[in-house]
Amino acid sequence: MRTLIKNGTVLSATGASAADVLVDGETIAAVARPGVFADDAADTVLDAAGRYVLPGGIDAHTHMEMPFGGTFSHDTFATGTTAAAWGGTTTIIDFAVQAKGTSLLSTMDKWHEKADGNCAIDYGFHMIVSDVNDTTLKEMESCVSAGVSSFKMFMAYPGVFYSTDGEILLAMQKARDTGSTIMMHAENGIAIDELAAQAVAAGRTDPVQHGLTRPPELEGEATHRAIRLAKVTGAPLYIVHLSAAQALAEVAAARGEGQNVFAETCPQYLYLSIEDLAKPGFEGAKYVASPPLREKHHQTDLWRGLRTNDLSVVSTDHCPFCFNDQKQLGANDFRAIPNGMPGVEHRMDLLHQGVVAGELSLARWVETCATTPARMFGLYPRKGVIAPGSDADIVIYDPKATQTLSADTHHMNVDYSAYEGLEITGKVETVLSRGRVVVSPDGFSGSTGHGKFLSRDLCQYLN
Amino acid sequence: MRTLIKNGTVLSATGASAADVLVDGETIAAVARPGVFADDAADTVLDAAGRYVLPGGIDAHTHMEMPFGGTFSHDTFATGTTAAAWGGTTTIIDFAVQAKGTSLLSTMDKWHEKADGNCAIDYGFHMIVSDVNDTTLKEMESCVSAGVSSFKMFMAYPGVFYSTDGEILLAMQKARDTGSTIMMHAENGIAIDELAAQAVAAGRTDPVQHGLTRPPELEGEATHRAIRLAKVTGAPLYIVHLSAAQALAEVAAARGEGQNVFAETCPQYLYLSIEDLAKPGFEGAKYVASPPLREKHHQTDLWRGLRTNDLSVVSTDHCPFCFNDQKQLGANDFRAIPNGMPGVEHRMDLLHQGVVAGELSLARWVETCATTPARMFGLYPRKGVIAPGSDADIVIYDPKATQTLSADTHHMNVDYSAYEGLEITGKVETVLSRGRVVVSPDGFSGSTGHGKFLSRDLCQYLN
Amino acid sequence: MRTLIKNGTVLSATGASAADVLVDGETIAAVARPGVFADDAADTVLDAAGRYVLPGGIDAHTHMEMPFGGTFSHDTFATGTTAAAWGGTTTIIDFAVQAKGTSLLSTMDKWHEKADGNCAIDYGFHMIVSDVNDTTLKEMESCVSAGVSSFKMFMAYPGVFYSTDGEILLAMQKARDTGSTIMMHAENGIAIDELAAQAVAAGRTDPVQHGLTRPPELEGEATHRAIRLAKVTGAPLYIVHLSAAQALAEVAAARGEGQNVFAETCPQYLYLSIEDLAKPGFEGAKYVASPPLREKHHQTDLWRGLRTNDLSVVSTDHCPFCFNDQKQLGANDFRAIPNGMPGVEHRMDLLHQGVVAGELSLARWVETCATTPARMFGLYPRKGVIAPGSDADIVIYDPKATQTLSADTHHMNVDYSAYEGLEITGKVETVLSRGRVVVSPDGFSGSTGHGKFLSRDLCQYLN
Amino acid sequence: MRTLIKNGTVLSATGASAADVLVDGETIAAVARPGVFADDAADTVLDAAGRYVLPGGIDAHTHMEMPFGGTFSHDTFATGTTAAAWGGTTTIIDFAVQAKGTSLLSTMDKWHEKADGNCAIDYGFHMIVSDVNDTTLKEMESCVSAGVSSFKMFMAYPGVFYSTDGEILLAMQKARDTGSTIMMHAENGIAIDELAAQAVAAGRTDPVQHGLTRPPELEGEATHRAIRLAKVTGAPLYIVHLSAAQALAEVAAARGEGQNVFAETCPQYLYLSIEDLAKPGFEGAKYVASPPLREKHHQTDLWRGLRTNDLSVVSTDHCPFCFNDQKQLGANDFRAIPNGMPGVEHRMDLLHQGVVAGELSLARWVETCATTPARMFGLYPRKGVIAPGSDADIVIYDPKATQTLSADTHHMNVDYSAYEGLEITGKVETVLSRGRVVVSPDGFSGSTGHGKFLSRDLCQYLN
Repeated sequence: MRTLIKNGTVLSATGASAADVLVDGETIAAVARPGVFADDAADTVLDAAGRYVLPGGIDAHTHMEMPFGGTFSHDTFATGTTAAAWGGTTTIIDFAVQAKGTSLLSTMDKWHEKADGNCAIDYGFHMIVSDVNDTTLKEMESCVSAGVSSFKMFMAYPGVFYSTDGEILLAMQKARDTGSTIMMHAENGIAIDELAAQAVAAGRTDPVQHGLTRPPELEGEATHRAIRLAKVTGAPLYIVHLSAAQALAEVAAARGEGQNVFAETCPQYLYLSIEDLAKPGFEGAKYVASPPLREKHHQTDLWRGLRTNDLSVVSTDHCPFCFNDQKQLGANDFRAIPNGMPGVEHRMDLLHQGVVAGELSLARWVETCATTPARMFGLYPRKGVIAPGSDADIVIYDPKATQTLSADTHHMNVDYSAYEGLEITGKVETVLSRGRVVVSPDGFSGSTGHGKFLSRDLCQYLN
Repeated sequence: MRTLIKNGTVLSATGASAADVLVDGETIAAVARPGVFADDAADTVLDAAGRYVLPGGIDAHTHMEMPFGGTFSHDTFATGTTAAAWGGTTTIIDFAVQAKGTSLLSTMDKWHEKADGNCAIDYGFHMIVSDVNDTTLKEMESCVSAGVSSFKMFMAYPGVFYSTDGEILLAMQKARDTGSTIMMHAENGIAIDELAAQAVAAGRTDPVQHGLTRPPELEGEATHRAIRLAKVTGAPLYIVHLSAAQALAEVAAARGEGQNVFAETCPQYLYLSIEDLAKPGFEGAKYVASPPLREKHHQTDLWRGLRTNDLSVVSTDHCPFCFNDQKQLGANDFRAIPNGMPGVEHRMDLLHQGVVAGELSLARWVETCATTPARMFGLYPRKGVIAPGSDADIVIYDPKATQTLSADTHHMNVDYSAYEGLEITGKVETVLSRGRVVVSPDGFSGSTGHGKFLSRDLCQYLN
Repeated sequence: MRTLIKNGTVLSATGASAADVLVDGETIAAVARPGVFADDAADTVLDAAGRYVLPGGIDAHTHMEMPFGGTFSHDTFATGTTAAAWGGTTTIIDFAVQAKGTSLLSTMDKWHEKADGNCAIDYGFHMIVSDVNDTTLKEMESCVSAGVSSFKMFMAYPGVFYSTDGEILLAMQKARDTGSTIMMHAENGIAIDELAAQAVAAGRTDPVQHGLTRPPELEGEATHRAIRLAKVTGAPLYIVHLSAAQALAEVAAARGEGQNVFAETCPQYLYLSIEDLAKPGFEGAKYVASPPLREKHHQTDLWRGLRTNDLSVVSTDHCPFCFNDQKQLGANDFRAIPNGMPGVEHRMDLLHQGVVAGELSLARWVETCATTPARMFGLYPRKGVIAPGSDADIVIYDPKATQTLSADTHHMNVDYSAYEGLEITGKVETVLSRGRVVVSPDGFSGSTGHGKFLSRDLCQYLN
Repeated sequence: MRTLIKNGTVLSATGASAADVLVDGETIAAVARPGVFADDAADTVLDAAGRYVLPGGIDAHTHMEMPFGGTFSHDTFATGTTAAAWGGTTTIIDFAVQAKGTSLLSTMDKWHEKADGNCAIDYGFHMIVSDVNDTTLKEMESCVSAGVSSFKMFMAYPGVFYSTDGEILLAMQKARDTGSTIMMHAENGIAIDELAAQAVAAGRTDPVQHGLTRPPELEGEATHRAIRLAKVTGAPLYIVHLSAAQALAEVAAARGEGQNVFAETCPQYLYLSIEDLAKPGFEGAKYVASPPLREKHHQTDLWRGLRTNDLSVVSTDHCPFCFNDQKQLGANDFRAIPNGMPGVEHRMDLLHQGVVAGELSLARWVETCATTPARMFGLYPRKGVIAPGSDADIVIYDPKATQTLSADTHHMNVDYSAYEGLEITGKVETVLSRGRVVVSPDGFSGSTGHGKFLSRDLCQYLN
């Protein structure tokens, strides 16, 4: 089965070229000057005139059917990966979640069970380590061998995922020894929990308190601490869902000194703010995620961080909970609102909006959403680039189409959109996953068993 | 005429892929999985097994037959571009030098005369502005239209190339208005000249005084000043031949704030030091260039800067003067030693040595030596990348070959090597310029009329 | 003649004590617990109950009858020092101004002629060096010997006071060798003059243009440059009339590294802003001084700088020109407005207002306005402290009195007040200069021949 | 009882004056020009010709008979305060140590019992809070009312004194509300304990491991964290025994931003290094204290910090354990070596040595060792200055005498000196405590019941 994508503008992390792409089976056979391959060189010809042809997006931070506070994030691997495909994302890296008292390997098995045969696109796993002990540390080696080469830890959520600085130190030493990466949720959860308890004790229980009790200084603090522990141990460090200027400053300083420190941000921090959390009634619950949405001025810093590469990746932290039942758990106490927002479907579009607005170059759009995540998480050149031999994960994108985001039209399995009514420019037209057209103007043509597990190498950026 | 380069590892700014490259005429027709094109698809087949296949190097800073202090740099465009080709560089951007009292356009004409028909590889021009006045400022617009979209100014060399801060301000305003780039030689020449005069007055006339009278703080100072003037005016700024940690810190700070500031360094600052300037007798004169070679600890900072992208480009500042006659002009006064060192031939090799030493990744080697210079100076994707439609400027590089650098074997028209006897790993095997093999294991097969003038666009990195 | 000041709160740079002060002749004989000295120990007893008793203010930056642009600042040494006394300032350090082509020593003589016998309070001189040459440099040694141990240079005012970076370097070397201090007007006047010329050429001639064409970045730039030149040479550096956050940041950074860098600010930068310069009609001319008044947000930084000691001194840069004739010189071209504002009378009051507002502690008020200037300019412990043996320059200050600033009531010889109508809390009640009451509730009782020249030592803060 | 100290050079935080000091009873009656008071004005006349007369030293950080790891620091209040007096220190602020499960008020009572009637000089208390709970927090208010206005917390020593970030946050909120100061032992003890356990597990049990397992980055980290928690809460923060350049950088940054952050260092960090910890055999145990002695290059930074006031105070952290029995507890495991070093006797001398070496000015010596501690901990002007009404705590210091430090001659109740054999210049000659001569050339003439408890005000530096 051969497909020729012709007449398009092929995008990469360094720029754009007019080129045709020949797909043969699951991979890219060639990238060629228009005309080198005649139409009859392929079984199918897709005309991409006036379109961008870019590597499929990689969302390095999703939580499908994740257990949290007695409920589960509402997208299954099936619904979530289908929504991702609709939005031009062809790879997700989801998080396997170690429960306290269980092993990493059994956790990995469990997540394979959840995902295998249920994904519309390819997927990999990070491992959340919530119980650091000798067994766990030893198992990290096996995880790396099994292609799960990054480990997420939490400086927040005491009693749930939280690790002490000592546990973090031990895991970082193992990361250094195995060349794997520690991903960090960097908020000082110990201090935050006191502030949150004080708010509730004072009768301040509404959703905006979620933001007010998690000040940006405490994200900056934890980010600094993680960086210093990484320096002491020599571990690579990746800060997830960076939201605050204070945290960005810490990352930038460490990167300036050449330390192996990286960070991602998410579309919600670029477009939404604590004003959304403060919407009347319980509406703000839709926007409860951690770290919280910040004051608007942080957005300016985050966009600049994306340009300077102090923020290297845009992921979604997709973790949807329905407003009408799940979010209501916290109707009387913001602390009980499940933390998370939907987003896997709109990342490529929202960042393209940054291109439209002059915040990012086209090359940087592709780099932050596809190429860098691939390199960061050991998937390059299989993923993240349109190059011969690479998986034919390809998006044909119409930069001039317009669309309106809405829960009425999105494909994520959640009853609200954080961007309800937002009009944007640019739209995914066609998506190929390993050579197969899974989204086209005719709709979704993929299948939830199509996606395969990706055994990942180590980070490809290490000094 | 079609050439197939097969079995190689194709390098880009983001990584490596096993791929074949089909060249058709002057440009790249396709990049394909091995086997997609049979040998008979091409007139010539080059086997690159075990070799890197990378975009031809771009040296964005050379001075061929440049007038300086009554003499000329000793490489002509013919000898210099031939030496460049030997070293895997397929594009140079040389400097047209406005003499005081002359116009930019006549200067451009003069440099076209010098170069046209005499180059072995493609070339472009930057314009050195040494006489800022209403006419010159107006002519900057014509230069940009004519593909000379970057203007170099000097904060050093009072009485020769020096511009006052007021003149710099005016030129920067014009750069802002035209979208062109100001390149800056950032040393406080006014203060330096006093220090140099004091040294000579005190009888300290030997070459090492060249270094001692140009302290790194005065490079840092001028870099900061240029950055601030660029901020006030809104002009893009590119610091040439950055040599000192102090200057790097200024660039890094400005880049962190998102200002359009860029910098290059040169191999001599990465490998040589003031200890070379201090060699016995007059030997140090071989190493006289400005800024001067620094104490060794600066090298660590510069390598780190290349990794962090605070240094985006490696150029050579190739400006060779023969030791046996030209350098002798300063035998009694270091100030009269012609400033400059040979280097255009060895940049790719010396930076590959950084890969061997673990200082740089392969991707970053290609990025700093080819892809970024192309994007920085408006040549991408014509140059700087192996992609369909791009000029077939291609280097086949043997990463395991070894060689010894020496004036006996180099091709630059100068009687000494700054790296005499240095043994390195990696060697250019074959070079194509616009589809033509100009260097091969059989020797040089190019011709000095082959190279064409490159009309350049604006910098492609601007925020 | 003995005077006992009793029942007051004696202030110092470290705090406050209830104490009586016994003055004997021109100096302080003792500071004692209330009651140690009976009333009959003195010829005169001043009751300071409810009052502060503090060392007389030292204004280290005044320009009496200074030639500027064809006119003279309107206060003579007689009128200016009398106004100073009214405001609780008992020492000024004025600037002797070298005219190009003249010698420092003849300049010093000339200023002695102007001042001697005409001052109501003690005075010293700094020397403005505007013509750096071998003779001048040699004369700096004589100046230091004659008690003029600080030299002001200008990076602004090309063609008038401006020195090149090379001249600054030479003078700084001499300062290093003699232990004297270089004071710097740090604005990039070369670049500013271009901006100013462009404004006039575009028909923008009103006073606010004075501010708009002197952007704070160019004060920051020059400050950085002066600091680096000081570092290269090893000279102590004192930045005069610092007005911009950018300049403060440079000073703070250098001080953090332990370099001998100091700075003063002035009341006008703490209380006034570019909004005053933009007042309708020609009103803004009253506020034309260099550096210009800045946007209000700089005030926050300056107050913080005073607290952190990155700003060590508050001086006035008193340089009054009458609105009704002198300022009118620039009615058609803001560049011709004489640069300068009146202020010598109100410094102590305006800074006490900072105490009232919680910006400064009482100790810091005394330190920045009296003790530090004394130590900075080699006058301590003769001046700047209430201690036995020190000159009896003493202010009795009523912290609860209120007053309204106005040209109708001030004693400076100028026809407007920059603070017209400002109501403030705190008022000078009595002033002693070398033991003599010169201001009392009954009015001025001093005489213009009373003040003596102060031969100053070197800065007492040098590392 | 009146004492006249005549002919001396009286030192203050701002400089020196030739003056006589008249003491009447327990306080200073007057400071006067020599000759104002005749000899018969006093019962006793002390001739201080050629001597400095300075305020008695204030050691704001001592641990007398402190319980630690099953033993007690070996100086009692009696022996320790006597040794202090010998060394020119007339005030100590010791730490009352809350045991887990006990109350602050009972702790305060207990320490009053220990100290009352047993001290040779005046003393105050800080309170160590090791058990944060509602009762404790409430008691903080009572402590402040009782003159114990500063609370020390530990980020080190888990299981002993350690507080979580949440507990710190709560205590800081209370500090903000009461205006009191949080003092912080800033080392990341959680991470350190892991490193220490790993060292022991690997058989590395000797004293130098104490230093190697407490890297300076983890002091910098904790310092940063404490600063950020202080920022979030608005509490004043005082970092105790700062030893590392990394921590200093954090303090300096916060102070530059105007935050109420202060720090002290100790003589051992200025003069000793990890090389002492690495002395052969068990000798290094003498130098075990936390934070540990650092590599020598930190000393340069600490001296600079003292000059820039980023380090405001020099204290000793005096906490002596005898080498021959107590230190031996850790013969097989460095973790069991009691942490602490003797020092209360030598602080004034060692810092005077910094004056001799040109590291500090005389004024700064007095300021860091007496005046600032007084202001920092609410004792000024009762202590820390020679002024009328102040307690007559006075040291007559011979700057030219020489002495050799040794356990053979010191007065601390410990069997070794950390400075054994060190020859220094300058020596305490006479010491007055509240008007009583307690040390003179004839020896110790004080008594251990003389010292009184000092009820302290709040910090006098707060913005």
